[in-house]
Amino acid sequence: MDIKFKNFINFQSSKSKMKDFQDLDHIDGLSISTTCANLYNKPRDDLVMFYFRDGANHASVYTQSKIVSENIKWNLSIKSKKIKSLIINTRNANAFTGMEGYQGLKEIAEETSLQLSKKQKEDEDHPKNILPNEILFGCTGTIGEKYPTKKIKNSIPNLISKIKYTQTKLIWMKAALGIMTTDSKPKLAMEECSIGNKKIKIYGIAKGSGMIFPNMATTLGYVFTDANLSNDILNELLKNNIETTFNAITCDGDTSTNDMVSIFSTGKIKNFKIKDINDKKIKNFSVALHSVLLNLSKRIVADGEGASKFITINVIKSKNEKDAKKIAFSIANSSLVKTAIAGEDPNWGRIIMAIGKSEVNINLKKLSINFGDIKVIAKGQLVNNYNETEVAKYMKKHSIDISINLNIGLKKFTAYTMDLTKKYIEINADYRS
Amino acid sequence: MDIKFKNFINFQSSKSKMKDFQDLDHIDGLSISTTCANLYNKPRDDLVMFYFRDGANHASVYTQSKIVSENIKWNLSIKSKKIKSLIINTRNANAFTGMEGYQGLKEIAEETSLQLSKKQKEDEDHPKNILPNEILFGCTGTIGEKYPTKKIKNSIPNLISKIKYTQTKLIWMKAALGIMTTDSKPKLAMEECSIGNKKIKIYGIAKGSGMIFPNMATTLGYVFTDANLSNDILNELLKNNIETTFNAITCDGDTSTNDMVSIFSTGKIKNFKIKDINDKKIKNFSVALHSVLLNLSKRIVADGEGASKFITINVIKSKNEKDAKKIAFSIANSSLVKTAIAGEDPNWGRIIMAIGKSEVNINLKKLSINFGDIKVIAKGQLVNNYNETEVAKYMKKHSIDISINLNIGLKKFTAYTMDLTKKYIEINADYRS
Repeated sequence: MDIKFKNFINFQSSKSKMKDFQDLDHIDGLSISTTCANLYNKPRDDLVMFYFRDGANHASVYTQSKIVSENIKWNLSIKSKKIKSLIINTRNANAFTGMEGYQGLKEIAEETSLQLSKKQKEDEDHPKNILPNEILFGCTGTIGEKYPTKKIKNSIPNLISKIKYTQTKLIWMKAALGIMTTDSKPKLAMEECSIGNKKIKIYGIAKGSGMIFPNMATTLGYVFTDANLSNDILNELLKNNIETTFNAITCDGDTSTNDMVSIFSTGKIKNFKIKDINDKKIKNFSVALHSVLLNLSKRIVADGEGASKFITINVIKSKNEKDAKKIAFSIANSSLVKTAIAGEDPNWGRIIMAIGKSEVNINLKKLSINFGDIKVIAKGQLVNNYNETEVAKYMKKHSIDISINLNIGLKKFTAYTMDLTKKYIEINADYRS
Repeated sequence: MDIKFKNFINFQSSKSKMKDFQDLDHIDGLSISTTCANLYNKPRDDLVMFYFRDGANHASVYTQSKIVSENIKWNLSIKSKKIKSLIINTRNANAFTGMEGYQGLKEIAEETSLQLSKKQKEDEDHPKNILPNEILFGCTGTIGEKYPTKKIKNSIPNLISKIKYTQTKLIWMKAALGIMTTDSKPKLAMEECSIGNKKIKIYGIAKGSGMIFPNMATTLGYVFTDANLSNDILNELLKNNIETTFNAITCDGDTSTNDMVSIFSTGKIKNFKIKDINDKKIKNFSVALHSVLLNLSKRIVADGEGASKFITINVIKSKNEKDAKKIAFSIANSSLVKTAIAGEDPNWGRIIMAIGKSEVNINLKKLSINFGDIKVIAKGQLVNNYNETEVAKYMKKHSIDISINLNIGLKKFTAYTMDLTKKYIEINADYRS
């Protein structure tokens, strides 16, 4: 394990007491194990199992793509209130693999439920029978390649033999490493908060926009908490917090067949029962969850392929959030804006272009644009004392903030992206050579 | 003039009798002159005047951007039935230049109308007074920079002194060169057709997605004909033919503040008067106009920044044209698809991804995908005899055709684009260094 913590950017919110993910430890009711199923034909962990010995409540959001992978079809078919295991493989996306790919998951789920039921009998006072439809799958990697059912199925006993009922920072790191494709860094985040007088942990891992062999960016995010929250509450919490986190990032505007973000609660902390999302006691938790999701999202962007800059696009004082989002993504997805930033060029003309093409009606006379703290456009005009040298100096920073003030309302949206570099082209065009 | 005709790709339609634009000559009623107004501070023509001694009927379509340049605001204010001149400058887009930029055009229009009225008195038996509001402007180049009103105004007498009443291939070429920004090649196209028993010429020039100094891609296209067609008919012809030509191309998905395509008819050929767009006599003309517009559009894409491949995306058998267009552009604008093609990689997985994210409902079981004539996906599955070596060989071609057959309807749409290369990043990120 040659991971140097000091190399990680700290995306922890300023309010957080956590030192990023350096304090990761144990979430009661959860086990994590990883193994090498030889999916890459090289010695790296490529299969990760999360096991909830007493089950976990859960909620997930999935890709908006009209073409989805077989594991997402499988997950969508699961109606069980409690989940016993989440299994994630890399290297093969199990997308465009048809009935055979789906059947593979079924086989693996059957094998896993059998083995886990056996484990329950060995370890538990009141063993429960684990069913195939209590298992979820995350897949990422190449699409259209035959799903390696056998390799994965044969590795299940090994995964289960490694199950421990406590976690260390190391096993969290191994899990984050085990779901990576071409990510250059594992992605973890953590927060602690309280519901009433109970201390609650929220830990998460993610993988980002790695393209592998002939394929695509998959975003996976998995969050675990020891809080006791119902599926309905988890669902609402996830939906309320996903728009400004995982749905606020863009690397190249492309969407995968496999995107998936889930939250699991083991319920081991007997917090006050939350019946209603508007219950004030859940506020803290929601803020902390948002922080974990945003932290993971930012890590995905910062590790975007070929990225040399982390870019934040703030659109403020918009009539509504929808317009603010349209403008923010029009800028964040513009190849011209992203190449200019790669070239450290304060090219406000391209920002104007991207605002213009967003199809949002704005009042040009009220428009302001800032690069960091430097005002560039005010009331729709280049500021009188515009000093390009000063802005060019700002563009040399690693993290670039661009703020668009529409001055016509009260709503806002922030999008996160990275620059577009030659390295991106290299990774995505030349990887076979 | 060191332009080698043989270096141009022939985008002439197979039905056309024209040898591309090698036969360009004279359109009666039109004069063309070009000059160096020193807008680039180097000796190249940067100002082009089209002069219609007896006026021309006209129609234009403009950028859909919500932020438009001052010359487009000027053009939109022109209500004159006949246009006397079109003046195009490069290097400065006259966008985000405010009242001063607009005022500059007014000054230039006043000077031009004065000088042209003088010219009319010298040259014509029945001289007409030319008014400022009979002049249109095309601008392309940097946005946000002060508009060089004086330099352009001072060059008007020079432009007018060069007016000749016939054109050669050379002056057409000079005009096409004179409107270029970072285009690497001038763009011209021509067709001839007949309305009734009258032979009609349709000649066009365009400039493409050249980025200059801090800015953006502007598409300009100007078509000239000696046919006698009313403004209403020209308007309908342009609208009917623009969707599948200039609106079917994409280089990087970005839209300029200055995009403009116009058609002018001098009316010197006394063809049968067309009162209704459904008149069968106009059919030939519409087909020929489409061919000129498509030829120019393809030239713009082929000369896209850093382009090494010309890509045609055909979406066929769609329920409606709107869906076909959405899918075609989702593919054509995908950075992942475009980098794969740059890398000569037959990455059908990324095509699937781009179809999936287009938000169009498709029937996966009916989907077919061809690379050129090679079937890759049939009935939603990779073909049994899929031979990647064969497809990889196809990808080495300069012109790549990808066909998506949805098999659920009768409509289609074709989009044209180019690949995304390191050269694109170089041009757009590093041009200052």
